[in-house]
Amino acid sequence: MSDVLGADTTLADLPLREDLRGRSPYGAPQLDVSVRLNTNENPYPPPPELVADVTAAVQEAAADLHRYPDRDATALRADLAAYLTEATGVSLATENVWAANGSNEVLQQILQAFGGPGRTALGFEPSYSMHPILSAGTRTDWLPAPRRADFSLDGAEAARLVAEKQPDVVFVTSPNNPTGQSIAPADLLAVLEAAPGVVVVDEAYAEFSAQPSAVELIERYPTKVIVSRTMSKAFAFAGGRLGYLAAAPAMIEALLLVRLPYHLSAITQAAARAALRHAEATLGSVRALIDERERVVAALTELGFTPAPSDANFVLFGRFADAHRAWQRYLDSDVLIRDVGIPGHLRVTIGTPAENDAFLAASKEVIEEIER
Amino acid sequence: MSDVLGADTTLADLPLREDLRGRSPYGAPQLDVSVRLNTNENPYPPPPELVADVTAAVQEAAADLHRYPDRDATALRADLAAYLTEATGVSLATENVWAANGSNEVLQQILQAFGGPGRTALGFEPSYSMHPILSAGTRTDWLPAPRRADFSLDGAEAARLVAEKQPDVVFVTSPNNPTGQSIAPADLLAVLEAAPGVVVVDEAYAEFSAQPSAVELIERYPTKVIVSRTMSKAFAFAGGRLGYLAAAPAMIEALLLVRLPYHLSAITQAAARAALRHAEATLGSVRALIDERERVVAALTELGFTPAPSDANFVLFGRFADAHRAWQRYLDSDVLIRDVGIPGHLRVTIGTPAENDAFLAASKEVIEEIER
Repeated sequence: MSDVLGADTTLADLPLREDLRGRSPYGAPQLDVSVRLNTNENPYPPPPELVADVTAAVQEAAADLHRYPDRDATALRADLAAYLTEATGVSLATENVWAANGSNEVLQQILQAFGGPGRTALGFEPSYSMHPILSAGTRTDWLPAPRRADFSLDGAEAARLVAEKQPDVVFVTSPNNPTGQSIAPADLLAVLEAAPGVVVVDEAYAEFSAQPSAVELIERYPTKVIVSRTMSKAFAFAGGRLGYLAAAPAMIEALLLVRLPYHLSAITQAAARAALRHAEATLGSVRALIDERERVVAALTELGFTPAPSDANFVLFGRFADAHRAWQRYLDSDVLIRDVGIPGHLRVTIGTPAENDAFLAASKEVIEEIER
Repeated sequence: MSDVLGADTTLADLPLREDLRGRSPYGAPQLDVSVRLNTNENPYPPPPELVADVTAAVQEAAADLHRYPDRDATALRADLAAYLTEATGVSLATENVWAANGSNEVLQQILQAFGGPGRTALGFEPSYSMHPILSAGTRTDWLPAPRRADFSLDGAEAARLVAEKQPDVVFVTSPNNPTGQSIAPADLLAVLEAAPGVVVVDEAYAEFSAQPSAVELIERYPTKVIVSRTMSKAFAFAGGRLGYLAAAPAMIEALLLVRLPYHLSAITQAAARAALRHAEATLGSVRALIDERERVVAALTELGFTPAPSDANFVLFGRFADAHRAWQRYLDSDVLIRDVGIPGHLRVTIGTPAENDAFLAASKEVIEEIER
C-alpha cells in the first residue's frame, strides 16, 4: 500500500468516459539527453536582450497580479497583428487576431465553435497528431484523408474528398508536420472552393517556408479561412505558450463564445509582447536553420537516406526496416529524435550546427549498422 | 465598409454550432472605475518581495524559453501539495495535485474526462455561473438544483436530488459564489454518499472560510472527491491564472488523458512557485479581509440591507426592487459591484478599508434614494 493518499484507487475504478478507457496521455518522451531534436523547438536560446525585456515586462505586470488580466488580450493581439502584417504584407487589425495558451488551445476553441458532436473534421494524414486528438476531445468525428506516397498533397483528390465528405472543419497543415512540405497555393484554393465549412490552415512552421501565407485568402474567403500560428517554433518561445490565429473579425467573435474567461495570464501577455519586440533578432535564427536544414538533407541523402523535401525546421527521413529500433539506436548515441509512427521513417528537428553534426555522425553509424 | 479585413462578414454568416447562436461572451464588464469590487479579487497588491521573487524566477525561466515546459508541472504540483498539506493538515503528495491555467481550465478538464455528451452535471443554484457554461462547452447536460430561499443548502434535499438524478458530476461550491455560505460537513457527506459519480468541491474561496476543507474526504471517497482551488483570490494571483485541484492520483491520471499538452507555460509555473513561497505574507491579507467583511456586513445591516451570511471575500445583499438599477446607481458613484442576476440582490467584493468605506457611503445614498 502506497503512502500517497488515495493511491490504491486505479483509473479502472473511476467513472471515466468510455471513449477514454485504455488511452495513453499524448506526448513525446521528455528525456535528459545531450542532443534534443525531437519536438521542433528552435535550438537557439533567447538573446540576453530578449530575456531582459521579458523580465522587465513581467516585473511591471507582477505589480498588478492581484487583478484579473485583460480578458481580450487587446494589446497583445495588436502586436501580433502588426507582426503578421509586416511578415505577410497583408494588412491585419487587432480584430483579425486571437491568441491563447499555445496553438493547441486556439485549435480546441475552433473545434468547440465549429465542430463538436454531430460534426466532422477532416485532415490529410500523416499530419499534426493533435488535430485528431483535439477533435476527439471536442467529440468532433475525425475523417482521415490520405496524402500521396511521397507525403505531398494531391490537390484535386483533396478537393474531391472535401466535396464528398462535407466536413465542418478541414485542417491543412502547411508546412505539414511531420512531413515538411507546404501545400501549393492552387491546391489550397481547390480545397477552399470545395469546403462547406471552416478551413484551418495550420501555419505553425510558416516562418521557415518560402510559400505565401494563407492570410492573403481571408479577404476572399472570410467565412472559411482561419490561419493558425504559434510563437513556439521560429520565435523560440515554446516555453511561453503562445498560439494565435488570423481570420475575419466574426470568426474571433465566435471564439469569444467558447473561450474560458481570462484564459491568458497577464504574465503571458506581457512576456509575449516583450518577445515580439525582438522578432527581428529571433527570426534571424530562421535563416541559419534553413541553411542547416539544406545541409542536413544533403548529408542524409549522401549517406543513403531518403529525406522528404522540407519547408520547415525538421526533416522526415527513411527508410528504416524498423523505425523504432533505429530511434532507439539514435538515443543510444545520446541523440533524441522522434518516431512519429510513420512506418520506415523518423523525424529530426534541425538544431545548431554542432547538434546536427552529432545527429549526422549518429546517422552514419546507424546506416552502417543497417547495411552491415 | 470597414477598413478591417473581412469585417463585412458577421457571426450570422458563419457555420457556428447551433447551440452557440445568439449567445453572448461570458464576463463581468471591465470598466475603468475608481473602486472595483466586482470580481472577488484580493484588493492588496503583491508585496514588493513577491514581485521581486516572481521577477527573478521568470528571468531564470526565460533563458530556456525556446524549450517546451515540463508538461506535467511536477515541481509546481509538489509546491502546491506542500501548501495544501500545511493549510489543511491532510498530507498530500505531488501525485494528488493537478494544475492548469485558472480553475476554469481545471473544471473543463474534469468535465472532459467525466462528463460530455450523454452525461450530466448537477449544481445547486445560484452558484458559480461558469459551472453550467463549462458543462455546455463540453456538451454535458446541466441539471440545476435549488438552494433554500436564504441561499443555504438543504443537505437532505440535495442528497435526495442527487440520488434521484444520478448525475455523472456534482458541483458543490463551498463557500458558495455568489451567495457566500459554506456547505455543512454533514451535508457534504450526504451528497457524497448519494453521488454515483464525481463530486467536485469548488473551494475557490476556502482560505476565507473557517470550515474544514474537503481534502480530508479524499481518503474515504477516492473515486468521488475532487477539490478544486485557485490562486486567484486569497493568493492575490488572479493575473497569474493558476487553478489547481487535489484528488486521488488516479483522478489526475484521468485528466492527463484530456489536458492539452504543455498547457502550463514555463513562465506560469515559475511565477506561481515564486508566489507560493510568499504564501504566509499574502495570506496575511486574508485575516484583514475577514475583519472587513464582518464590518461591511454589520454596516449594511445597520443601513437596512439584508446581507447573506458570508464565509468568503464577498457579500450578497439586498433587497432591491430593481437590482440592475441599483447596480447602475453604485456605478454612478464610481463603485463597481456585481449584478449576478439574482433578483433583488447585488454582490460586493470586500476591498481595502477605504474601498469599503466608499462602497458603504454609496450604499447609504442608494438606500436613502430607495426609501425616499
